[in-house]
Amino acid sequence: MERENKVSMAVIRRLPKYYRYLGELLDKDITRISSHELSNITGFTASQIRQDLNNFGGFGQQGYGYNVEELHKQLGKILGLEKIYKAVLVGAGNLGQAVANYKGFEDAGFKLLALFDKNPKLIGLKIRDIEILDVDNVEEFISKNEVEIGIITTPKEHAQSVADKFVKSNIKGIWNFAPTDLKVPEDIVVENVHLNESLFILSYMYKEKNEK
Amino acid sequence: MERENKVSMAVIRRLPKYYRYLGELLDKDITRISSHELSNITGFTASQIRQDLNNFGGFGQQGYGYNVEELHKQLGKILGLEKIYKAVLVGAGNLGQAVANYKGFEDAGFKLLALFDKNPKLIGLKIRDIEILDVDNVEEFISKNEVEIGIITTPKEHAQSVADKFVKSNIKGIWNFAPTDLKVPEDIVVENVHLNESLFILSYMYKEKNEK
Repeated sequence: MERENKVSMAVIRRLPKYYRYLGELLDKDITRISSHELSNITGFTASQIRQDLNNFGGFGQQGYGYNVEELHKQLGKILGLEKIYKAVLVGAGNLGQAVANYKGFEDAGFKLLALFDKNPKLIGLKIRDIEILDVDNVEEFISKNEVEIGIITTPKEHAQSVADKFVKSNIKGIWNFAPTDLKVPEDIVVENVHLNESLFILSYMYKEKNEK
Repeated sequence: MERENKVSMAVIRRLPKYYRYLGELLDKDITRISSHELSNITGFTASQIRQDLNNFGGFGQQGYGYNVEELHKQLGKILGLEKIYKAVLVGAGNLGQAVANYKGFEDAGFKLLALFDKNPKLIGLKIRDIEILDVDNVEEFISKNEVEIGIITTPKEHAQSVADKFVKSNIKGIWNFAPTDLKVPEDIVVENVHLNESLFILSYMYKEKNEK
């Protein structure tokens, strides 16, 4: 895996899609697949697929194609999915509750230990057996439980102060849903889900297709 | 705007961020800004900013910088935000309700007319005064109300059939949250929010930073 560091984020961002499709093939008991068949399914070109996967050592064999189970397993490893990450979420309103209810969590290896909010009406409630706690205790909880991932589903104006608490209590990865760009030290990874930007893009594409 | 068609999606995907930051500057009564200052705020290089904005005619003036209000307005136009889009949502569970409650809707010019579900326990409830209706009536509703945008927050296995209904009833844009790639005719635009892929990327980046 020595070459991994040089792999561009554009390639990395395609890996979850390969992983997802390979999982679906496994569910259908399909054991091997050519890059051309993968191309038909994913919409990427066969040469792009071969190039992408070659970055990680090239799992295919000439004339045979890819072993679906093996490739799925290897991509899972590359994506870090064999590890269990302990996570907490701050901002237990509608979006926070929807995220907490999200079924894909466990599949991706994330274990949500607790939700936090400052609203007394929410504190004490449970989402999927996960309790909503007082946000004043979030740093203590993170340290005590060695939480690795923090999720931010607060309104924009509170997001940075939550991120600061995460950083202080030694969280290393943040999944941020607030429509703002967080300022964090370099060793902290942040993955944003910016719904407003996604809507703007939809609006742009709609306009481009329909108003020419 | 003749050159717009040639603008790459990579540039387009940066525009919402410019738009958001310019909106924040406007809120602070900042009337003009240089590409260097914009660079400090957005994290893009000043030359990238100039290049990006030149694609749309170049709104800046040498020695003056950009007029914040004008640039914000023009980017809003480019993104199609001056138009009001009528939207419906199918899949009124947790995620659907969170999306329906999402405050950024109106800001992006989207008006959510109704939610749809097949669960009798949900039908008749209201989210922000927007009623949840029986999904059997979604096509009729779309045609009658000339709905332009459909939002899919159903489980994966129902997403394609919802998309098919949208296409049949002449919807032109789909905001898809289901973890699957929809098959739709070429003239329909689809913007995906794939939470599982985003989590996988977070997992990958976390692993890369912390296990070397």
